Amino acid sequence: MKREILYQKIAGTIARQIKAGIWRVGDKLPSLRTISRENGISLNTAIQAYYELEKEGFIVASPKSGYFVNYKPLRLSAPATTQPPTKDTGEEEDYLISEVYRSIEDLSITRFSMGVPEDILLPIAKLNKELIRAMRSLPGSGTRYEDAQGSLKLRNDIARFTYNWNGNLTEEDIVITAGAGNATSLALLAITQRGDTIAVESPVYFGILQLANSLGLRVLELPTNPIVGIDPDALKKVLPQIKACILISNFSNPMGCCMPEENKKAVVKMLADYNIPLIEDDLYGDVFFENSRPKPCKAFDEEGLVLWCSSVSKTLAPGYRVGWIAPGKFKNAIIRQKKIHLISTPPLTQMAVANFMENSRYENHLHRLRRELHSNSLHFVQSIIDYFPEETKIVRPQGGFMIWVELDKKIDTTKLYYEAMRQRISIAPGRMFTLQDQFKNCMRLSYGQKWTPAIQERLMLLGDIIKKSI
Amino acid sequence: MKREILYQKIAGTIARQIKAGIWRVGDKLPSLRTISRENGISLNTAIQAYYELEKEGFIVASPKSGYFVNYKPLRLSAPATTQPPTKDTGEEEDYLISEVYRSIEDLSITRFSMGVPEDILLPIAKLNKELIRAMRSLPGSGTRYEDAQGSLKLRNDIARFTYNWNGNLTEEDIVITAGAGNATSLALLAITQRGDTIAVESPVYFGILQLANSLGLRVLELPTNPIVGIDPDALKKVLPQIKACILISNFSNPMGCCMPEENKKAVVKMLADYNIPLIEDDLYGDVFFENSRPKPCKAFDEEGLVLWCSSVSKTLAPGYRVGWIAPGKFKNAIIRQKKIHLISTPPLTQMAVANFMENSRYENHLHRLRRELHSNSLHFVQSIIDYFPEETKIVRPQGGFMIWVELDKKIDTTKLYYEAMRQRISIAPGRMFTLQDQFKNCMRLSYGQKWTPAIQERLMLLGDIIKKSI
Repeated sequence: MKREILYQKIAGTIARQIKAGIWRVGDKLPSLRTISRENGISLNTAIQAYYELEKEGFIVASPKSGYFVNYKPLRLSAPATTQPPTKDTGEEEDYLISEVYRSIEDLSITRFSMGVPEDILLPIAKLNKELIRAMRSLPGSGTRYEDAQGSLKLRNDIARFTYNWNGNLTEEDIVITAGAGNATSLALLAITQRGDTIAVESPVYFGILQLANSLGLRVLELPTNPIVGIDPDALKKVLPQIKACILISNFSNPMGCCMPEENKKAVVKMLADYNIPLIEDDLYGDVFFENSRPKPCKAFDEEGLVLWCSSVSKTLAPGYRVGWIAPGKFKNAIIRQKKIHLISTPPLTQMAVANFMENSRYENHLHRLRRELHSNSLHFVQSIIDYFPEETKIVRPQGGFMIWVELDKKIDTTKLYYEAMRQRISIAPGRMFTLQDQFKNCMRLSYGQKWTPAIQERLMLLGDIIKKSI
Repeated sequence: MKREILYQKIAGTIARQIKAGIWRVGDKLPSLRTISRENGISLNTAIQAYYELEKEGFIVASPKSGYFVNYKPLRLSAPATTQPPTKDTGEEEDYLISEVYRSIEDLSITRFSMGVPEDILLPIAKLNKELIRAMRSLPGSGTRYEDAQGSLKLRNDIARFTYNWNGNLTEEDIVITAGAGNATSLALLAITQRGDTIAVESPVYFGILQLANSLGLRVLELPTNPIVGIDPDALKKVLPQIKACILISNFSNPMGCCMPEENKKAVVKMLADYNIPLIEDDLYGDVFFENSRPKPCKAFDEEGLVLWCSSVSKTLAPGYRVGWIAPGKFKNAIIRQKKIHLISTPPLTQMAVANFMENSRYENHLHRLRRELHSNSLHFVQSIIDYFPEETKIVRPQGGFMIWVELDKKIDTTKLYYEAMRQRISIAPGRMFTLQDQFKNCMRLSYGQKWTPAIQERLMLLGDIIKKSI
């Protein structure tokens, strides 16, 4: 009993110091050995104290580099639930989107606009090994056409990996695609027709708006809360009008919101009542910062109406273009569309990913990636608190790569984009993420790059540019 | 002068023997050494004699294996110019197409239905080397997103390679796609809308019919000659109704026809008069059996209305899914559609192909591939003469991978497909290549596999099955 009290006492002291602001978000805590030595306690007791602090969300462990403060009573307030105009399709900011993603290979620009992990966070040497192994093991070294459903081995690995959300999928349930965006494209081609209406979050990933435009679909943007996501009541009202619904259910792009399980269940149920398919893009689901992976809506899909899409583009290799879809009852339609528009997908990169997913390597990599991104997100939050104007509104990210920032109403983030680019800082203006006249004072920042003093300085500079532009 | 007369004399003798049927198509001729010894002439004179015969189209050289007879006054007659019904869109044989391409990885089936080169004809070891080099040289080993237009190096190599048809393209004119089928998909997404009508050959590659169906386009199949391709006069008549035209201008799939230059010029001109884009799929253009590469329609495109599509799927690596499009004035629209549906293409396979295309390696490989396929085509022609019923109609292939076979009117090749599959022979029934009620007595055979006695036996067996089914 004594030992238990001891570690709790030490944990309590550190927690009070953190609450009092003696330790700030992102600060590195003393090592376990130091704590043990300075408090005259065993290493084991120190470990238990830190474990307790970690459990309560005060600190976070970063592999090999130690423990960091992870708690801060935010002085910042969160953006309100969005209230998009009830008009359907408005105008897309196509020029702006092209502008933001122009010359993505220019390394002199700090790209807070890119929602991908930086190379240094990826297991590239191991992937290279697996690529060579794939080249040597595949029939014809991967030069042959493959069956349209995609690599059996990869489908098997993906199916097995769904154990982390109690998914009950088999390799037969999965179709490989050229990334998650391509999965969404195939899903819309399979289940919608020109003139149909789809319901989406607001703000929404611009790629969904562009896809809808390309296929002649009307878009209904629905009220969305920055923490819990789309408003199920708002969705309920439009069910009679829509042909499909698209949601990034976990750590949505751009808001970062994550639907609670009860909302997911409710949404799946109400869509099923109207026999409406849900295209669920779950590409950030594995990048969670809490204790466990949030389930996707697919976990509650009894009717085969949820088309669950994901990829390794945000966790392993954006450039491999390997994604997948578990299309439920639409499997044959999806395979048909894939054959028509792609014929098949390249075996080499698929097999490299499949090899990497064997054993627990992918799980270990994700563990490290999550720690790193979590730590990045805390640094970003702290920098925004420190460098951005008082009235800035954000939500502490629960997972994923993005932080949605609401600035003073007077600021136009499209103009801000051009001002920041003069300093070679790229941001994603809010207007990219809607067809309506809204979010002009918002922007999306990505924290996918390794945290460095240089990044911190760029955020400080961005804060200055914002302050000047008011 | 004496030497010249000598080699001409020997060439003349052999030519007469071939015309008289003493040597038959596919027969191997005596080696140069044997000819030299038996005629008491120098090796150089023998070489000149064979060169003369080759130039005149009597014989063909196959690298490392010697010289083969390549001339035969066909007793077979060619199919007539097709006369598709003038109705627009009819019904697609979707089930049949899926059936024919089911379980393509099953190696126990002789796939006369697959229009791709067999592994053994591909430079796989060299490609593997280039893949490893690509992995080592690309930023992030190819895990990064790439600019949407695709690999600059590959675009440059492709542009340079168009010298073989006097193409005047630069890397800026080219967009990389996930294969030539994907290029056609992006082209249709960029330039058509649901309800538009497109003009195509008849018979036509089924993938085009499926694409049109997927995008809600109406299809007008036009009369097509098995040797010179689509009838320009028929196209002229429908110009006021169509939004786009799709042609496989060189060695079309499935008929193998190749448009003469004057027809290409005429078609490009008449389409330009109506400001109608031409999607030109030129994926077989490099696999010619005559002296030089036939120019694509793109060579005569002054208005930027020709979207020239091609790939390495038929010449290097089907499984790499590397293709391209030179979209003329539609470049921005194509890049936009690519971003929307694919985001980008994988750098690794692109760079492997680009590395391979450096220097003259690709040209040398194509040279060997053409010889091999030409030789295969001659063997197929001879086997069809020998084993198929008298009334069979074919055209001697001028390039590409396919031979279009017209059988007795009484034969239904869809039924024949199932009968042949019982013997594990797969053919492509004619009904796959039209939306109309036609070509039921036709089939497409591919000679992309290395010619062996086993293949010859399978063709003999197929001939027997056909004879029995009358």
